Amino acid sequence: MRRFSHATRHVVRSTRVPGVQLHHLAKVQDPRGGLCAGEFLRDIPFVPKRFFLVFEVPNGKIRGEHAHKKCHQFLVCMSGALTVSFSDGEKTGSVKLKRFGQAVYVPPGIWCSQKNYTRDAMLFVFASDYYDPKDYIREYKAYLKWKARMSPL
Amino acid sequence: MRRFSHATRHVVRSTRVPGVQLHHLAKVQDPRGGLCAGEFLRDIPFVPKRFFLVFEVPNGKIRGEHAHKKCHQFLVCMSGALTVSFSDGEKTGSVKLKRFGQAVYVPPGIWCSQKNYTRDAMLFVFASDYYDPKDYIREYKAYLKWKARMSPL
Repeated sequence: MRRFSHATRHVVRSTRVPGVQLHHLAKVQDPRGGLCAGEFLRDIPFVPKRFFLVFEVPNGKIRGEHAHKKCHQFLVCMSGALTVSFSDGEKTGSVKLKRFGQAVYVPPGIWCSQKNYTRDAMLFVFASDYYDPKDYIREYKAYLKWKARMSPL
Repeated sequence: MRRFSHATRHVVRSTRVPGVQLHHLAKVQDPRGGLCAGEFLRDIPFVPKRFFLVFEVPNGKIRGEHAHKKCHQFLVCMSGALTVSFSDGEKTGSVKLKRFGQAVYVPPGIWCSQKNYTRDAMLFVFASDYYDPKDYIREYKAYLKWKARMSPL
């Protein structure tokens, strides 16, 4: 345990896919323990209506593999490591979350999946909307058609 | 890993201190892994503006030890175990969170502290307001005076 206080600020970086952001949550470490924090609308670009935590994913399993029409998501690595892949139908990107506090902001209209969960991986997700099956696009072909309708030439 | 799906609903129980609630988050376990979820205003009594995660708390350290005047908090055990104690100045209660998904709702005006963190304990907290040092009452005597002013005979 460190004897001095150590703090990092919230950091946001863009990715190869427009709108998708890589975040590092702010951390404070002092003799009483560690604290990692974030504020909605200030650090995280929306206010959540829902959250969920994914855990004990068997190695080899892929989760996600869908897009949301309206829902924003913010994926935070809580422990272990996993890979988050994302695409807007043209550009694709991928990031390995391997430290507690690393996060990905996924705006609506992005195809996203998660894989290579380590045994101890825990992924915490904030969502801007309540669960609504109508907001999901679960087939990639249907996603590309939907994207084409949303972005006419 | 279980081969069948297993789900539990969100459960809320009252405690000895009026307003303070013990929650168990809903869980779904299936061959793709585990999922634990909650919805704000439906399961959790407020919409958060802030969250923080407490981790690597040295054994013997006590955290919290304050009350909020206006801010609601929802404390979720993410891993390990810890004890949450709470009081309204008259009645006191305590609960050991020892399973992932066990949580305590702490309304404004409750004195609250956390102790007996195990080495692997992680406590996730949702707060209804942004950080504001003026909302904290950090001394128990001052808290009792504030309570007396809030609840005149």
